[in-house]
Amino acid sequence: MYKINLYSVGKDKESWLTDALKLYQMRMQKQIQLHFNWVKNSEQLHKALQKEKQIFCFDPNGATLTSDAFASKLEKGLIEGGSQLALVIGEAHGLTQELKNYPLISFSKMVFTHQLSRLIVVEQVYRAVQIWNNSPYHFS
Amino acid sequence: MYKINLYSVGKDKESWLTDALKLYQMRMQKQIQLHFNWVKNSEQLHKALQKEKQIFCFDPNGATLTSDAFASKLEKGLIEGGSQLALVIGEAHGLTQELKNYPLISFSKMVFTHQLSRLIVVEQVYRAVQIWNNSPYHFS
Repeated sequence: MYKINLYSVGKDKESWLTDALKLYQMRMQKQIQLHFNWVKNSEQLHKALQKEKQIFCFDPNGATLTSDAFASKLEKGLIEGGSQLALVIGEAHGLTQELKNYPLISFSKMVFTHQLSRLIVVEQVYRAVQIWNNSPYHFS
Repeated sequence: MYKINLYSVGKDKESWLTDALKLYQMRMQKQIQLHFNWVKNSEQLHKALQKEKQIFCFDPNGATLTSDAFASKLEKGLIEGGSQLALVIGEAHGLTQELKNYPLISFSKMVFTHQLSRLIVVEQVYRAVQIWNNSPYHFS
């Protein structure tokens, strides 16, 4: 069983988002235990990340990957992290310098809300599982 | 008052998405009347688009824009279309050849579900309005 800890700064105030995140979390629970970790600020984030071995961060200046490339990168990260990986969405004004030292992934040149970023990351993780499984979710 | 018709193929079956789309629609109703138009297939889509003057389509092979560039493009499109614009998300297997003749916009190299694509487009339209207004939503 793989385990992914998704870290993001700020609280989830939108109920539609809570619903959507739970739905994806449930759909992939047989292959990935996905945990949502909310922290208040960058300081708390750095503290929380100390217990993580393998960390990827999302940043508009990161590598732009296709969904297939992201699926491969995710699997490699999970294997190298001993079946565990941390994914990090930083604060609205961007990642701290320290976080920029981790592998950076970008899903768009556009700016999204943190709420939407969370959903995009979770959908891409779910899609990655479907890519590993050769499921029609991605290939149809 | 600007009017945007968002066309997409297939029905919206996820209640969290309906909630999220309504929320954004309401938040920008003073500046943009946003209508959601669901069509069954590409044939119905072509038929529906005949009444539109100005049309932009979303496609992974389109131009990758920043949110600011998208905001400018959207405003230009609305002005050229006499305050009205159609935004089109095609079928899962991509846009028809005919639709590829319209200006194409890409928000990511990644593949998203149509549900998520709708939400991303709507959030970017809402963000565009905030960019026109110099609102802290985008600039903070």
